[in-house]
Amino acid sequence: METPWEHRYAHRTQRMASSVIRELLKLTEQPDIISFAGGLPAPEVFPVKEFTEACNVVLRDLGAQALQYGSTDGYRPLREMIAEHSVRYGIDVTSDNIMITSGSQQALDFIGRVFINRGDHILVESPTYLGALQAWNAYGAEYISVPSDENGMNTDLLENALRSGPKFIYILPNFQNPSGVTLSLERRKQLVKLADQYGVPIIEDDPYGQLRFEGEHLSPVVVLDNQFRSGNGSYAGNVIYLSTFSKILAPGIRLAWIIAPKEVIQKLVIAKQGADLHTSTFNQMVAYEVGKTGFLDEHVKIIRQTYSERRNIMLETMEEFFPSEVHWTHPQGGMFLWGILPEGMDAADVLKIAVKRKVAFVIGGPFHPNGGGENTMRLNFSYSNPETIREGISRLGFVLKELIANGK
Amino acid sequence: METPWEHRYAHRTQRMASSVIRELLKLTEQPDIISFAGGLPAPEVFPVKEFTEACNVVLRDLGAQALQYGSTDGYRPLREMIAEHSVRYGIDVTSDNIMITSGSQQALDFIGRVFINRGDHILVESPTYLGALQAWNAYGAEYISVPSDENGMNTDLLENALRSGPKFIYILPNFQNPSGVTLSLERRKQLVKLADQYGVPIIEDDPYGQLRFEGEHLSPVVVLDNQFRSGNGSYAGNVIYLSTFSKILAPGIRLAWIIAPKEVIQKLVIAKQGADLHTSTFNQMVAYEVGKTGFLDEHVKIIRQTYSERRNIMLETMEEFFPSEVHWTHPQGGMFLWGILPEGMDAADVLKIAVKRKVAFVIGGPFHPNGGGENTMRLNFSYSNPETIREGISRLGFVLKELIANGK
Repeated sequence: METPWEHRYAHRTQRMASSVIRELLKLTEQPDIISFAGGLPAPEVFPVKEFTEACNVVLRDLGAQALQYGSTDGYRPLREMIAEHSVRYGIDVTSDNIMITSGSQQALDFIGRVFINRGDHILVESPTYLGALQAWNAYGAEYISVPSDENGMNTDLLENALRSGPKFIYILPNFQNPSGVTLSLERRKQLVKLADQYGVPIIEDDPYGQLRFEGEHLSPVVVLDNQFRSGNGSYAGNVIYLSTFSKILAPGIRLAWIIAPKEVIQKLVIAKQGADLHTSTFNQMVAYEVGKTGFLDEHVKIIRQTYSERRNIMLETMEEFFPSEVHWTHPQGGMFLWGILPEGMDAADVLKIAVKRKVAFVIGGPFHPNGGGENTMRLNFSYSNPETIREGISRLGFVLKELIANGK
Repeated sequence: METPWEHRYAHRTQRMASSVIRELLKLTEQPDIISFAGGLPAPEVFPVKEFTEACNVVLRDLGAQALQYGSTDGYRPLREMIAEHSVRYGIDVTSDNIMITSGSQQALDFIGRVFINRGDHILVESPTYLGALQAWNAYGAEYISVPSDENGMNTDLLENALRSGPKFIYILPNFQNPSGVTLSLERRKQLVKLADQYGVPIIEDDPYGQLRFEGEHLSPVVVLDNQFRSGNGSYAGNVIYLSTFSKILAPGIRLAWIIAPKEVIQKLVIAKQGADLHTSTFNQMVAYEVGKTGFLDEHVKIIRQTYSERRNIMLETMEEFFPSEVHWTHPQGGMFLWGILPEGMDAADVLKIAVKRKVAFVIGGPFHPNGGGENTMRLNFSYSNPETIREGISRLGFVLKELIANGK
């Protein structure tokens, strides 16, 4: 049907392509396929009981407020709860430094809206989170990418990248999506030092920080930056920090937060006024009710245990079934690991055959904003149960062995 | 605190001013003030009981799905329910023509994102909805405004405005925010005919259509457009239609919808992927659970009755207490009415004194994108109870009489 809208799209829609991955995901949506392609939390760990109780309490005691319009920056008790939680992790902020968003994707969009002019360069790890690229492409961002390895972004290569004048650095330090790797403490310190030297601020995206299965907690970049800048560790404002309830409570309620200097929060609030007025009052009040007694601290232990077990099964079965030419990361937490095929092998070719054998993953190429990574793949271990993981990895191992034996 | 972010804001932030009205609203946030300034539904009519039951059913039967990530276009049963509801009102669409948004403000933002290039002209009524101006200013929109009167946009002046080549026409035909006026049937037909003649599509924003207290239901512009274009009234795609659950269920859950041609929906879905992935699964499922048995059809009757009574009280007390030099609209539905002061009198001066006398409203000027309307004011009648309305209007009448007696 020809409509008068077709000739009226804004120029920016040309930069708003549906992600390659969404298209590939459609391939994997057959009911009998084992998919490691998505990025879903395990539904088994959603605290449905506590959530139901919280809904009932909120509606009983504060129903009229919960269903009414709310303030753009977010429900104050929730922001105060997040501030207290942040202080415990060494991020010395108050509720005035916090804005609630409808998921971290919205935080990324608002950062694009408030900071990115067309043609601005953003310094990212390669690979990096695809959702950030998708949000910022709409604003005409370009990317300077610094390769990462088992210890995260290679900060030895950072200085050169900083010389080309990026607007900001975007980094996911913990159990990164897609690679699963964690930025080492030494590199975090190096990052903070170089960012200061070149006067470039940092966006720290930390959805998985609470989901560490093993090894020592590493200070967030924002904490190291504060220590570097101010003797007392108070919030220096150089790092904007993002986190979310999606991985510790539930993604279906779309609740996340931004920590930023107050004057940045004011700009973000104006962006949100125009974008959606405010995030659901009801969902914010329910999340506060669930979290206020410290329940989430206990609950993340269950999530960690579940995901840790699933990661172990995935690593063990990869060891058992994958050909020796394939390598992979060993994440200490989070939801994803990263497979590296032999140089020259194309993960898209593997996926086509894998789907026929009823197993799926996400190809790694699109996570590289400046190309490369065609021989990489992202595997999610949080969603499938252990038996399914074992079966899926054995199928994928079979496909890989066959392809490698046939010289691809 | 000086941070490196301050020098890094995008150029567009200069077009993203916090609304004048938000600043004025702060004046009115004293606890003892009677405020007709906001645009809030009456909390007394929120169906807290039904909403609570729906939360319990959804979490009991479909908890894992409700708390999980969902699809970007929206929960299919909810979209199907909206499609059926639309068909009943003569809008012949399927769920493929519908996308769920996080409130209508998000629909307006996405329309800006998908259609508006910097410098594009949008044809609007004057006065028009401030939230649309705020959303589209961020994309660099400019405005061609056509004055409205007691019968809505003056379509006799439309043809001249259409000659300057607007990208689209934006219109709120029913009980408009801010003026409360309704576009007459004759003018609706004239609008459709002229839009066709000049090949300009229409955005019809209809949050209040269900809230008619008296008079006959008038066909939405989209229905008249379909009849004009196709013999059978099937959806012709020239009109994008917006509506919301905020006024018939509750605004705190942030649920609205867009009806558009399928290829426009595809663009909107890509915009939403980058903006916030999807609207809360849980809220969508609860709204579906509340609405699926037809409850909302019964519920709007209670809302209509409540608001009708409040409108009557406001009109009666204005008649009683306002000086004869002041005029106002007589809305047949919705939530707002519009006061017109004598020419040359400034509503901002009135507001300053009114606030001291503990009563508030919104000045009308900012609703006029190309200036004018300094002598106008918006009064909300949905939020305050009848006694409060009576007291507030009597205070405001006193202020107006005093100012007019003193020659302003």
